[in-house]
Amino acid sequence: MALPHRTVETPVFMPVGTVGTVKAVAQDVLESLGAELILGNTYHLYLRPGHETVRRMGGLHRFISWPRAMLTDSGGFQVFSLSQLRKVTDEGVRFRSHLDGSSHFFTPEHSMDVQIALGADIAMAFDECTEYPADRSRAEESLRLTMAWARRSLDHFRAHRGEAPWSGELEGKTQSLFGIVQGGTYKDLRRESAERLIEMDFDGYAIGGLSVGEPREMTLETIAEVLPLLPAGKPRYLMGVGYPDEIEMYARMGVDMMDCVLPTRAARHGLLFTSEGRLNIKARRYAEDQGPPDPACACPVCRRYSRAYLRHLMQAGEALSATLNTIHNLAYYLCIMERVRESLHPEAQAKLAAGAERL
Amino acid sequence: MALPHRTVETPVFMPVGTVGTVKAVAQDVLESLGAELILGNTYHLYLRPGHETVRRMGGLHRFISWPRAMLTDSGGFQVFSLSQLRKVTDEGVRFRSHLDGSSHFFTPEHSMDVQIALGADIAMAFDECTEYPADRSRAEESLRLTMAWARRSLDHFRAHRGEAPWSGELEGKTQSLFGIVQGGTYKDLRRESAERLIEMDFDGYAIGGLSVGEPREMTLETIAEVLPLLPAGKPRYLMGVGYPDEIEMYARMGVDMMDCVLPTRAARHGLLFTSEGRLNIKARRYAEDQGPPDPACACPVCRRYSRAYLRHLMQAGEALSATLNTIHNLAYYLCIMERVRESLHPEAQAKLAAGAERL
Repeated sequence: MALPHRTVETPVFMPVGTVGTVKAVAQDVLESLGAELILGNTYHLYLRPGHETVRRMGGLHRFISWPRAMLTDSGGFQVFSLSQLRKVTDEGVRFRSHLDGSSHFFTPEHSMDVQIALGADIAMAFDECTEYPADRSRAEESLRLTMAWARRSLDHFRAHRGEAPWSGELEGKTQSLFGIVQGGTYKDLRRESAERLIEMDFDGYAIGGLSVGEPREMTLETIAEVLPLLPAGKPRYLMGVGYPDEIEMYARMGVDMMDCVLPTRAARHGLLFTSEGRLNIKARRYAEDQGPPDPACACPVCRRYSRAYLRHLMQAGEALSATLNTIHNLAYYLCIMERVRESLHPEAQAKLAAGAERL
Repeated sequence: MALPHRTVETPVFMPVGTVGTVKAVAQDVLESLGAELILGNTYHLYLRPGHETVRRMGGLHRFISWPRAMLTDSGGFQVFSLSQLRKVTDEGVRFRSHLDGSSHFFTPEHSMDVQIALGADIAMAFDECTEYPADRSRAEESLRLTMAWARRSLDHFRAHRGEAPWSGELEGKTQSLFGIVQGGTYKDLRRESAERLIEMDFDGYAIGGLSVGEPREMTLETIAEVLPLLPAGKPRYLMGVGYPDEIEMYARMGVDMMDCVLPTRAARHGLLFTSEGRLNIKARRYAEDQGPPDPACACPVCRRYSRAYLRHLMQAGEALSATLNTIHNLAYYLCIMERVRESLHPEAQAKLAAGAERL
């Protein structure tokens, strides 16, 4: 996937860099872990430091010193999940900041303006993430809104796509805009959503509105329904998933991109993902465990530190706890994707067959 | 200064690794910054995770995965500054933990046992840090206690010095024990303290009880009084100082070792030390400042990030803020010491004279 700042191998897992930082991990560490594409949250960055500040700083890449690829979401998800006193109309969403209660109005056009100012390689159409459960009429109404907003997002983006802060520096390369398939758990609505977006001709397509509380088999059914409808020649992005076994499964089903706060957020709460399953590093039984977090992992944390030390850092409330736990979890997720990429690549398959196993 | 885990060039500044971590900075980063010798706090480590746990984990070096040199303080300073309901007798100090209110009793012998279990390269005699101001009789009484405890510390340490968790692994090398000169702001008490400690024949000597609120000229006078009394052939350690200009001055006066929480603690509050003076990174005027924290600094933070980004991280309450600020401040302190070492070294002086300036 050739993006202005980086050509990214797919399938790819994108660490979430909420407000211009993947929480607790420095950019050089992310690079060394092999992160190619990280996500920034438009809602958070719009509120703080503000997209105009980021634009004046040369865009998000330069502001946070991240030379590889980035994607910004549309702001819609956080407007609906974090902000207060939302009022949704066809025009857009009025909401109050979760930080200071100040009033803001987001429209598809405004979301595009903000995302263009941030200048990520990939921007997302402004959508409404349909909640679960949503009855048929609610899902229909939500989808109607999302489709109208997709059209307006695309029109506005096309009129301004060359205006990213770095435009002119990268051989005329421009941002991409992805559309987001919604429709709740209704297969026909999902199909309709996919078909209408494809007709609009976005640069890529995302499946949104999943992992919002629905049963896992329903997630899987929806993905299985939508994925084949999306053009194979363009990136297919499954938003907001998931556990390690899920991201591996979805990648093998043909998903090109995924993002999730799980590896980073769980890390801060002491939950490590390992080849032996989930490990709650706070548990007393690790107090004198000299083994690495995951004996099968070659990440810098597993190579250097013991479970006993990581538990101690957590118990003592030390900042290094979040950093080391997050590095391991991200390494674990990125490594899963690397394995999937290798197994999907014929040359790698041949190597594997010859017994030249990696990690 | 040849220590069991590292031969350390002096003068050296020691980052403070309170509870087994230099707050917010990973060990590999400390190594890359050139930290040779870090400090652990006996009081904190005794309470959490407990010195017996650390001993079973192979000692502090192995527990925290720090292969270079370490020093532990005696626990005295924190017992007197952090704990509650202290009761001091000739035998020792009874105190309550600042964490859970549990009751503990520290004697010179117990401090030695704890420090031997932790196994730092350098241990410190158990002392009472005389407060400022202290009248003559209070300072005399405090010194009497510290001298008696120094004797008991040394006797107990000598009887057990080969019992560090790593004993037997490092060609028979053993921990060192330093005595601590006290005496408040009374020159004759300071002299008496130094002479009696030298008579006991410690492996090195520290000047304690400074930077506890006394005027700076008094600090300087005390150092100037004590330093010439200490044997030049053994390390001279000035405890708990100071600002960048101070550590440079003291190093040039002949101090071999210094430690201070200032660069790390100030960093977490957004105060950066730079070649242009102190910089409060929270200030609004840095909101769109694309320059590095310190244009004259070659640390990884100054090479990569802007003031605007560091301010944003601080404003957003992001963990990376403490990490990056601390890396810069430590780099700044370590760099000062490196410059002093080079200027004290005849070969380096020749180079400097020839115009081959560094940094």
